[in-house]
Amino acid sequence: MSVRLIPRVAAAHEPPMLIKNLLRQSNRYEPNREIVYRNLFRMTYTTFNERVQRLANALTDLGVQAGDTVAVMDWDSHRYLEAFFAVPCLGAVLHTINVRLSPFQILYTINHAADKVILVHEDFLPLLDGIRSQLTTVETVIVLSDSVYDAATKQINTATFTAPDNTAGEYETLLEKASGTFDFPDFDENALATTFYTTGTTGHPKGVYFSHRQLFMHTMGLCTYVCGYQAVSFQSTTDVYMPITPMFHVHAWGFPYLATMLSARQVYPGKYEPEMLLKLILTEGVTFSHCVPTILNMLVSSPAAVQFREQLSRWKVIIGGSALTKGLATAAMKMGIRVYQGYGMSETAPIMAVSYLNDQERTLPIDEQVPLLTQAGRIAPFVEMRLMDELGNFMPHDGEAVGEVVARGPWLTQGYWQEPERGSELWRDGWLHTGDVASITPDNWVHIADRTKDVIKTGGEWVSSLEIEDLLSQVEGVAEVAVIGLPDEKWGERPHAIIVPKPDYKETLQPDMVKAALQARVDRGELNKWYVPDRVIFVSEIPKTSVGKLDKKRMRAEMKEEIMK
Amino acid sequence: MSVRLIPRVAAAHEPPMLIKNLLRQSNRYEPNREIVYRNLFRMTYTTFNERVQRLANALTDLGVQAGDTVAVMDWDSHRYLEAFFAVPCLGAVLHTINVRLSPFQILYTINHAADKVILVHEDFLPLLDGIRSQLTTVETVIVLSDSVYDAATKQINTATFTAPDNTAGEYETLLEKASGTFDFPDFDENALATTFYTTGTTGHPKGVYFSHRQLFMHTMGLCTYVCGYQAVSFQSTTDVYMPITPMFHVHAWGFPYLATMLSARQVYPGKYEPEMLLKLILTEGVTFSHCVPTILNMLVSSPAAVQFREQLSRWKVIIGGSALTKGLATAAMKMGIRVYQGYGMSETAPIMAVSYLNDQERTLPIDEQVPLLTQAGRIAPFVEMRLMDELGNFMPHDGEAVGEVVARGPWLTQGYWQEPERGSELWRDGWLHTGDVASITPDNWVHIADRTKDVIKTGGEWVSSLEIEDLLSQVEGVAEVAVIGLPDEKWGERPHAIIVPKPDYKETLQPDMVKAALQARVDRGELNKWYVPDRVIFVSEIPKTSVGKLDKKRMRAEMKEEIMK
Repeated sequence: MSVRLIPRVAAAHEPPMLIKNLLRQSNRYEPNREIVYRNLFRMTYTTFNERVQRLANALTDLGVQAGDTVAVMDWDSHRYLEAFFAVPCLGAVLHTINVRLSPFQILYTINHAADKVILVHEDFLPLLDGIRSQLTTVETVIVLSDSVYDAATKQINTATFTAPDNTAGEYETLLEKASGTFDFPDFDENALATTFYTTGTTGHPKGVYFSHRQLFMHTMGLCTYVCGYQAVSFQSTTDVYMPITPMFHVHAWGFPYLATMLSARQVYPGKYEPEMLLKLILTEGVTFSHCVPTILNMLVSSPAAVQFREQLSRWKVIIGGSALTKGLATAAMKMGIRVYQGYGMSETAPIMAVSYLNDQERTLPIDEQVPLLTQAGRIAPFVEMRLMDELGNFMPHDGEAVGEVVARGPWLTQGYWQEPERGSELWRDGWLHTGDVASITPDNWVHIADRTKDVIKTGGEWVSSLEIEDLLSQVEGVAEVAVIGLPDEKWGERPHAIIVPKPDYKETLQPDMVKAALQARVDRGELNKWYVPDRVIFVSEIPKTSVGKLDKKRMRAEMKEEIMK
Repeated sequence: MSVRLIPRVAAAHEPPMLIKNLLRQSNRYEPNREIVYRNLFRMTYTTFNERVQRLANALTDLGVQAGDTVAVMDWDSHRYLEAFFAVPCLGAVLHTINVRLSPFQILYTINHAADKVILVHEDFLPLLDGIRSQLTTVETVIVLSDSVYDAATKQINTATFTAPDNTAGEYETLLEKASGTFDFPDFDENALATTFYTTGTTGHPKGVYFSHRQLFMHTMGLCTYVCGYQAVSFQSTTDVYMPITPMFHVHAWGFPYLATMLSARQVYPGKYEPEMLLKLILTEGVTFSHCVPTILNMLVSSPAAVQFREQLSRWKVIIGGSALTKGLATAAMKMGIRVYQGYGMSETAPIMAVSYLNDQERTLPIDEQVPLLTQAGRIAPFVEMRLMDELGNFMPHDGEAVGEVVARGPWLTQGYWQEPERGSELWRDGWLHTGDVASITPDNWVHIADRTKDVIKTGGEWVSSLEIEDLLSQVEGVAEVAVIGLPDEKWGERPHAIIVPKPDYKETLQPDMVKAALQARVDRGELNKWYVPDRVIFVSEIPKTSVGKLDKKRMRAEMKEEIMK
C-alpha cells in the first residue's frame, strides 16, 4: 500500500504559493508603516502596494506579458523593491543585472536571458548605450532617475527630468500614467520568477533561476529562522531593515521579500556610500542589515562611526559573501554591533546557514561567542546539508571530517539557464555540489574550510586559506587580508599573504613582523609550521569580484606574474 | 504567451513539503529543551525525536503501512504529540478521535475512517470494549496508561501495568522494544496526513482531512502570524506552550506542530482539571495557551487563581470555539491575563483569523482594546476571506455589510471524507462556505455576527444571538449565557436567554432584573427593543457540544419542549 492523496471536490480550491501571497500580506495589518529611499523619498505600504500595481500596469501597457523577461539595472531602491514584486506577480521573469560586471559580460547576460524590457538607472545609461546596438532582444528601456525626488518636500516632481528619446520614458512618469489596480493572476507555483548570473572561474556567466514556490519557501525559511527561532532576532514591530548587499545579488539574500511580507519598516540606501549608510542607520533607526566583510570593515573603520556608537549598538548585521574574520568580528563587537554570519551562494537563493546561538551558547561570554559567530552559521531551517568525499560517500558530522558541502532544500536553482551540462555538474546524485570544503559539528555548526579551488595543498597537507586569513586578521596593524596558494617546486604549493595595513600602520608594518606573529604561534605549538606564508605583500586594496568577494583567481594570476619578475 | 516553468536537470532535487520537515527541525538547534507531561514525565527534544522514530517502528512492526489509518483516543499528552508526527511521517493517516462523542458516533467514525490501529488511553478502554464487536476494520489496539510514569522519579516503569489480553500491549513497552531509528520516506506532499470528524446539525459526523502540504503551510502561516507579525507574540526562546484545546480537535489549532518545529518548551496537561492546569501554568511557567471561553471562565473563577496572579500576568491565551464576551475578556484582563481571540473551524485546519493589534491599536488604553480583542480576529496570513450574500455576490468590507463568510487558503479541507455531496455543499464556486455570518472592516477585523443557523429573525429584523449574549455577559451576576431564537406566532422568532448565574447571585438574580438591564439600554437609545429576550431562564449548566461550544441545537429542542409544557 502507498500513501493516499487527498481527494478534492470539483469546486474546492487550494492556492499555489506565489509571490503575490507575500505582497498581499504587506498592507494587511500595518498599512501605515514606511519604506524609505535614501533621504529622497518615503511611502507607506498602502502606497507601495498601489505603486506595485501601477508598475504592473505600466509594464503591461509597454507590451510585457507572462513569460517575458524584465531586467533591472539600479542601485538598491524602492523602485527595485517594486520590481521584485510587480514583475514576477504578473507572470514575467525578473532579471536582476549585476551592474559590476564588465560591459561585455552585461551584454552577454542581457542577450542570454532574452530581456525584453530594461529598467535602468541613469548612472548606467552610458554603459547601456555603449552596448545597445548589440542587444538582440531588448525592445524597451525605462529610465530611473533620482532627480525626480525632492529631498526637501519628499514629493515627486517628474518635470525635473527628461528621459532620452531612445527610451520609453522615466519610471515615475510611467507610474503616474498607469492604473493603480492590477489583478495579479494565479498560475503554476513552479513558474519562473527571477534569474541572475553568477561568474565562475571559467567561461561565460551562468544564469541561476528561481520559481515562485522557491522564493515563497525561502521567505518562509527565513521567517522561521529569524522570527521563529530568533537566530538573528527580527521583530517586525520594532526592527528596521536596510540591505547592504546589492539587490541584484541573490535577491539581497531574500530579506526584502521577508521584510515586505511582514510590513516591517525598510530603508533602501541607493548607491553604497559610507556616510549615507551611517546617516540612514542613525536617522531611520536601522537595526537589521546584511553585508560583505568589506562594508562592515569600512563602516567600523570610518572616523564618523564613533559618533553613531549608540545607534550602532542596536544594529544587527549578518556577514556573508566572504568569511568573517575574528579580527573584524571583535572590532565590530567592541563597538557594540551584533555581528552574525550567513552562508549561501547564488545557486541557493541564497540562505543555507546563519549564526544561531542556542540556549547554552547565549550565556557564554562574548569572547567565547566570537569563535562561534565566525563560523558560517548553523544549517538553516528546511535545508539538508551533508559532507561528501571525492568518491561520493557521506562523511560524519563530527566537527573534524572535512569534505565538500552538498545540499538539498526547497529553494535551490534546478540548473543553469539553458546550460544543462553545467547544471549536471552542479547537481549530481540528487545533491547540489557547492564547491565549498567544510566540516560540520554534531550540533549543526558549519565551518567552511575553503572553496575547493582556494584550498592550498602544501607538502601533501591541505591548508585552509580562510584559516590563515583568520589568524592574520588578528595581527596588530592588519586591516584586510587574503591568502592564496602559489606553485612551489619543493612543496607543490605554498601560502602567500596579501595584506592591507591599517592607516596608522602603513609606514611601520613589515612582512617579517607579520610572519613573526604566526611563527610565535608555531613556537607555542598552536600551529603547524607550514601555515606561515612564504611571502607577505602589502597592497592598498585587495582585488574583489563584482559582488565583493575576494578575487583569488585574479590575485593568483597577478601574483604569479609578480613572482616571475 | 504564458508563464514558463523552471527547467530541472535530471539529478536536481526539490523536496516535497512534508510533516517530517517540521520534525527534523525540532532537535536541530535546541535539543535540550523539554516537553513535559503533567507532573508525570519530561523529556528533551533529543529523546522526543528518538521516541517518534520508536513509535514509527513499533507501528510498522504491528503491520502499519503507508495509506493505513491509525487512530488515537487520549487526553492531551506527549504520546499524542508523538503520534502527530510518527503516523503521518511514515505515510499513514492519523485519525484523532473525538472522545466526547457518544459511543455510537465514535463507532461510526472509526468504521468510516477505516482505522486499522487504535492507541487508546485506559480511561477509554471500557468505551472501546463496549463497541469493539462492531468495529469492522480495527486489527490492533495499543493501550496508553499513565501508571507507567513515576511522578517522583520521572522514570518510566512498564512493569507497573499489564495491558489486557485483547490488545497488542502497552505503549511504553512497545516503544522500549522498537528501534530508535526510522528513515521517514519522501512522498507526494498532497498525501493524506490527518482526519477527524465534526458533528453538524443533522446526520452522521463528517470527516475532514488534511494533507502534509496543508499542515506544513498551516504551520508556516501560524509562524508568520505569531512569530513574524507577533500577532499574539510567540517567542521560542522564552515562551512556554500548553494546549487547553483538545488535540483531537483540529490538531489543537495546529500549535503543537509550530511549537515542536521551533523546539519551544511545551507542556501537555492530560485530562483538563482546573487545579492541574493552574499548577502546570505556575510550576512550568506556561506563557502561551488557547482554550474555549468555558475553560478560561473556569480558571478565572477558580478561588485558587488569585494566588497565581503573577504567573497568570505572563499568560497569553487565545480564545476560540465560541465568542469571547466582553464580560469574560474584562474579567481575565483584570487578572493580568492577556486574552486574544481566534476564529476557525474543523474544516479550516483551523486558523482563519486571530487578534492582531497594529501599531496604532497597541497604544490604546485597555478598555478600548477590549472591543477589538472580542472580535474574531484579523484575517490570518495567506487566508483569503470574503463576505457573500445569498445570491453569491461579494459584499463590501466596510464593517457594516453582513454576509456569509467564505474563505480560500492553503490549508482548507478539500471535501468531506467519502461524502462528495456534502463536500459540494461546503465548496461552491471555489469558496469554502463557513455558515458564519459576519462583517469585515476595511482593516481586516472580522466580526462574527452569528452562525447562519443561530441568527434570530424577529419581526423581519435579523438579530445576532452573539450580540445579545455579549450584552447579557456584562449584566451583574451573569456567569454564562446563551441566547437562542424560538418560534413566535406574531414575530416569527423571538430571542430567549439561558443564563448561569454567578455563585453569589444564585439566590438573588431574577429574570426581570436581567431584562431590565437590557431595557435600560433600550431606554437610553443604545439598543433596539426587539433585542430584549422574551424569556430568561436560569440553569446550573449550559449544554455544550463535544468540543465545548454552546449546543444551541439542543437548547432549542429542550426549550421548545419546556415552552410547550
